[in-house]
Parts: sequence; C-alpha cells; structure tokens
Amino acid sequence: MYAEIITIGDEILIGQIVDTNSAWMGVELNKIGVKVKQITSISDEASHIVEALDEAQKRADIILITGGLGPTKDDVTKITLAKYFNMPLRLDEVTLAHVKAFFDKLNRPMIEANIKQAELPDGCTVVMNKNGTAPCMWFENNGKIIVSMPGVPFEMKYLMQDEIIPRIQQRFKMPFIVHQTILTVGLGESFLAEQIADIEDALPSHIKLAYLPKLGLVRLRLSATGDNEQVLLIEVAHHTKKIVERVEKFVVLTEDVPFEKAILDLMGKHSLTLSLAESCTGGYISHLFTQHPGSSTVFQGGGVTYSNALKQSVLGVKEETLLEFGAVSEQTASEMALGAVANFKTDYAIAVTGIAGPDGGSEDKPVGTVWVAVASKQEVKAKMYKFASQRLQNIERSAMAAMMMLFLQLKQDLEIG
Amino acid sequence: MYAEIITIGDEILIGQIVDTNSAWMGVELNKIGVKVKQITSISDEASHIVEALDEAQKRADIILITGGLGPTKDDVTKITLAKYFNMPLRLDEVTLAHVKAFFDKLNRPMIEANIKQAELPDGCTVVMNKNGTAPCMWFENNGKIIVSMPGVPFEMKYLMQDEIIPRIQQRFKMPFIVHQTILTVGLGESFLAEQIADIEDALPSHIKLAYLPKLGLVRLRLSATGDNEQVLLIEVAHHTKKIVERVEKFVVLTEDVPFEKAILDLMGKHSLTLSLAESCTGGYISHLFTQHPGSSTVFQGGGVTYSNALKQSVLGVKEETLLEFGAVSEQTASEMALGAVANFKTDYAIAVTGIAGPDGGSEDKPVGTVWVAVASKQEVKAKMYKFASQRLQNIERSAMAAMMMLFLQLKQDLEIG
Repeated sequence: MYAEIITIGDEILIGQIVDTNSAWMGVELNKIGVKVKQITSISDEASHIVEALDEAQKRADIILITGGLGPTKDDVTKITLAKYFNMPLRLDEVTLAHVKAFFDKLNRPMIEANIKQAELPDGCTVVMNKNGTAPCMWFENNGKIIVSMPGVPFEMKYLMQDEIIPRIQQRFKMPFIVHQTILTVGLGESFLAEQIADIEDALPSHIKLAYLPKLGLVRLRLSATGDNEQVLLIEVAHHTKKIVERVEKFVVLTEDVPFEKAILDLMGKHSLTLSLAESCTGGYISHLFTQHPGSSTVFQGGGVTYSNALKQSVLGVKEETLLEFGAVSEQTASEMALGAVANFKTDYAIAVTGIAGPDGGSEDKPVGTVWVAVASKQEVKAKMYKFASQRLQNIERSAMAAMMMLFLQLKQDLEIG
Repeated sequence: MYAEIITIGDEILIGQIVDTNSAWMGVELNKIGVKVKQITSISDEASHIVEALDEAQKRADIILITGGLGPTKDDVTKITLAKYFNMPLRLDEVTLAHVKAFFDKLNRPMIEANIKQAELPDGCTVVMNKNGTAPCMWFENNGKIIVSMPGVPFEMKYLMQDEIIPRIQQRFKMPFIVHQTILTVGLGESFLAEQIADIEDALPSHIKLAYLPKLGLVRLRLSATGDNEQVLLIEVAHHTKKIVERVEKFVVLTEDVPFEKAILDLMGKHSLTLSLAESCTGGYISHLFTQHPGSSTVFQGGGVTYSNALKQSVLGVKEETLLEFGAVSEQTASEMALGAVANFKTDYAIAVTGIAGPDGGSEDKPVGTVWVAVASKQEVKAKMYKFASQRLQNIERSAMAAMMMLFLQLKQDLEIG
C-alpha cells in the first residue's frame, strides 16, 4: 500500500519554513504498513496542485495533502479540490457551528473569511478538526483516497492520529512493516558496510538494510515487509542479532529512540541524576534532554555558563585555572563538571567548553576545538575533540560527543555490555 | 527561471530524518532570482529517480538532486544518472586523488567502496567536493542543468555556495526577486488580512503577499519579481510602508532575521547584557540565542533550574516562596528573574517557569500554565500564559512569549517605537 504526501505552500519552497510534517507522517504511516512513495512540495497554485494530484494518483493509493487551507487569499487548496472533484462549495452547518464555537472559546469575533472556512465541497466527507478552524476533507476517487488537512503541525498531527490513520486502517488491508534500528558509533559508513557485507548480501528480498550516518554515528535500519507480523519480527530479530554480534563493540543501542532518551531511561532505571555545565553548546544539550516528558526525574538542571564570570560563580571554576589554561581546556572542562556535580548535587554531570565559531579561534585552539568532561562523585574524565568550522554543526557534534562520553561512562560504571 | 529539488533517500520518506536541505536551498536560490517550483522526495530506486527527473525537466530549467551518493549498496543515484545520460562510468583520477588525500588526512585506510566513489559518468562536469568523498556532478541535457550533490548538509551547503550558485549565475540571466518580511504580533491571520485587504487588492501582479503564522506571530511577506532590482526595492518599500502604517501597533520587525537575533542586535547596540533562568523551557531559549555567532557579547549565560533545589541555590528563590506559591507562580518567576539579574550580573534577565506537560498539571494550574518574568536592575514584570497540552509546542510558545515580553520591555526602556 503506497501513500504520497503533497505539501502546499510557497513558504516551504522559498525556504521560510522547514517541512517537518512529512517526516512525522512518514513515521506514522510506516507503523501501519503504508509506505510513502513520494513527498511533493508545491506552491499555492491551482494548476500545479491539479498536476501533482494527477501524478500522485498514478503511483499511490492514498494521497495526503497538507496546507493551503487558511482563510486568506493565498490559500487555494479547498477551491481547487472542489473544482477537481466537480463538487460545488456549500456552507456546512456543522462546520460553521464548530468554527463559531472555536471563536467563542477564544473570545474573538468572527469575520467573513472565517465563515467562508465552513464552505466545503459538496460530496466530500468532512472530518472535524477539533484543534482549529481549517477543515479536513476526505475524498474518494476511482478507489483512491485523497485527504486534505491543514498544514499547522498541531492540527495535522491530531487529525492523522485520531481520524485519518484509523479510517485508512478500516478501509484497507495492509502488509506489515517491521523496522529495527541499530545505532553504532566509531566506525564509518563504508567500513561498517564492509564488515557486514556478507550478512547484507544474504538478506532475503523482503528485508532491506539502510545506512543512516549522522554526526559521527551510523544508524543501521533493517526493514521487513510481509503479511505475517510475527514472522517478520522473528526474521528481523535474527538478522539484527547477526549484525550486532559482528560489530558488537561499535553498537550503542538497538532501540529506535533518540540517544538522549536512551540515556534518560538508563539513568532513570538506576535512580541516577544528571546536571549539565554548558558553555559552547549554550543550552542545546539541556534542551535535548528536557524535550522528553518525565526528564525531570533524572535531569535536575544546569548552568549555561557562557561567560568566564559565570563559570566561576555558578560552577566554582578557579580564576587561576581560567587564567593559566583558558576557558577551553581540560582543566576548565573538568572543574566545570566537578562543580556541577557538587553545586547541583547530582550523581553525574557533563561539561562542554569549546570554540563553536565562526570566530574566536587561535592557532593553538582553532575553531572547532571542544573539551568535554564527564564527572561523577568519584572521578572526572575529559577529552578533546576537533570539529570543523560550522557553528551549528559544532554545537550538535559537541552535544553528541558529550552524550557518548556519558553513555560509555555509565556503561562502565553500571557494568553493562 | 525555475528550479526543482529532488531529494533521494528512503530515510526522508520513512521519516527518520527531516529534510532541512531543501529549505536552505530554497532560500539561496531565491536570493539569485531562481524560483523553486517543486521539491520532490523519493526513494533510492532507479526507476523512480528516472521518472522524477523526466517530470522535473518538464517544469524547470535547473534540477538539483541531493542524496544517494554514499559508498553503500543502497545508494544508486550515480549509476542511475550514468545510465540516464548514457555515459559509462570511468575512474576519474583527479577525484581518486582527492578521495585518497581525504582518507590520508583522517588517517584512515581506504576500502574498495571508497575507490568506487571516484568512478564517474564519462561526460559530466565533475565539481570537486572539498568537504567529503561523495562526488558532485553537473550535467547538461537539452538546455537543462542537472546537478547531483551529496545529501550531507555540510557538504551540500559548501557545494551550493562556492560552486553551484556561481555557475548557475554565470550560465543564465535571471530576474530579481525582492522579499520583505513584516513580523507582527497580537492579531490573528484573518484579522490582519481584513485590516489590509485594500492594500493587498491594489498590489500589482508582480508583487505577492503571503501570510506565515507561527506560534502567536504572523509574518507577512511581500515578494516582488522583475528585471530592475532598484525599482523592485522602491516598490516593495512603498507597499511595506503602507502595511506598516496600517497595522503599526502590531508590527515588531521589518527585517527578515529570527526574533532572538533581533533582540541580540538591539541589546548589543545599547551595550546591554542578558541572562536567563529557564525552568520549563529547559535550555531552549539559551539555545536560540547561542545559535547566533557573536551572541556572547550580550548573552552571558543562565541557569536551567529544572529542580526546585536549583531554583534556590542557583537563583536564590526563597524556600517560603516555593512552599507558599509553588514553582509555577508569579512570585517564583519574579524571584527567578531578579535572582538571575543579581547572580549573573546582567542588565536584563528572563525567567520562565511552567508546566510543559503532558503530566504535572492540576486543576488550579493545568498543563500549559506558564509564568514569564522579565527583570532589569530597576524592576520586574511577570505575566501568565495559558498554552495547550503539547509539550514541545508549550516550550516553543513559552520561548516566544518570553522573548516578546523582553522585546516590549526593551522598547519601552529604550523609548523606541
């Protein structure tokens, strides 16, 4: 069963927003055994919408359209679909009542454009959008399903989860897809491929292996498609085991969770607490951890000690250390981490101090030089990394390196693996 | 002049990675007057690549392809292009030397798969990729340009900026596109549209107005296309002025910079310093500021005081305050902000404390309740917000609200606007 996603809106094409909806939809569709064949982003232009719709229906059974449903003139999706399916627009009283209630709740008056949002193609199935005023419309056309949803992520996600996915499952009988991720570190993509070439070659045709390198990690993904979920799970487990045995010392995780979530889970399981002392990563690592519900049992907080003054006052880094070795040094990183453990009263702490760039480098310490320290109540270890010249990339790589150091330390201290 | 972007890789379709490349490319192409007509994401499958290429060439003059160029078996872009253009693969000695040098520098041995990366379609223009081993290939086909680049953002960005964009500019003569953004707050999309309906209706056909709502802000974007950049600038300035005058009290900015960057610039201009006290935003606001090069002159750092213990020890929030009013209260937020100003020795501080969810709410203080305080050395102001039940959205909305409060306070204190 194939789906295609069509996202409508000039803002994606001119790059003012990044399309995060499609990735999310891809994940959700895969879970129910629907493969995304293509994602197409086009402008708010009737002729182009029609063309994309025609082409998508040649390749896929389900077409999910997001965007272009706002009350303003640049949004033409609804009227284009009405013409495409030859259904005149008609005021839908249920939708109008919903839009009215929505504005009442916000204590805002409605204007003409909002009332027009309740005019819908006569003949489509109207799916109520509890989180907004833009309509959600379900069309059937020669055995194909075409759904139009708002592009606002919060509204689209609710509609997909609560309405569209269940309706798709009801409508079709689909094969299962089982994915298994193996997160590795320390071996480049091509070396990894060479190590497991014979295992990959021997995979049956319904199981695929993909390599997803990112920030010094390589994620391997096995995907199996078939009708019997139990058989697929056994097959995938079998091949996963073979790969993991082959490259054991490079394997970090075999769960498909973000790395920081795996750390939170591991620490939570052992009732350990964590704090952070971030300089060049500037709050990014804290943000990664605190994105996850329930992170507060493990993560107590930390200092974003961007200035030297804060490194001293918040973390207790000695002035002499800063003067003698500089802010980006083994000594400062270690004192930051130990200071965090002591001042924030946690079992572990990570400290990161470096030169993220693009300026601030010297011959001794070029842009991309980063010291990471991991401290527990017993000890502190520090390591230097040399990244490149891109600020955001350096921040992300530093975060990944810091989490890796913490993870390896935890594995050692907890005698895992 | 139209371009299309084709991104190749199963990882985008199954949602394991978000395609951020295309948005970045859209911005860069727009700057030189190339409009992106469509972005197409497809799998690593030869027949689909060929189909996408055929279709893209019907609509656009420049086709930019990213991804599918790694050394592993799932990457088929290069071999597919070689067949498509009927060019046999041939070992390119210059590329091979480059790949060898790359591995030497990393002090890593080369394997067979890496050598194969230097086999390129005989007849394409090879563009050297200084940042990686995957090749960049430039093809010409019936007056159309087709470029294949690696999908790694760092490599793609360098290639676009230093190689592809200059080559495109040399090759074609293109119209100019002038964009102007007006950032507004406090008025919904449809109300804004109603207020400026007559201005929008009177726009000439080569100037378009778009509404980009996000997190309580609405960004208006005027885009003008034409051959005379000076005339376009004058026209756009004229229409911008009309819109700004009409909705003056809702306009925050008329620059196209991220909101936090505008705050850094404003504070930097007045030699003001900032610190943060983040609870529920967990480092996100710090991260937003520290993304930007040079932020350290304004942003000194802050505390991610997730636990009550840290609110006391790092920010000096009184135990009685936490006991009597709770962590999510006007009093705690105010003490956090004042504590940050005092302890971190900055001119201003923002504090955020709230219940991001999905758990932790009560009848009194449901999930989504957030207190934001802005303090200077003279005063502190606090305000309560009620957001919804989505954790990440609450973090983002809280950050936006906090920055808005700081911005308005700065405007007032500096007597601007």
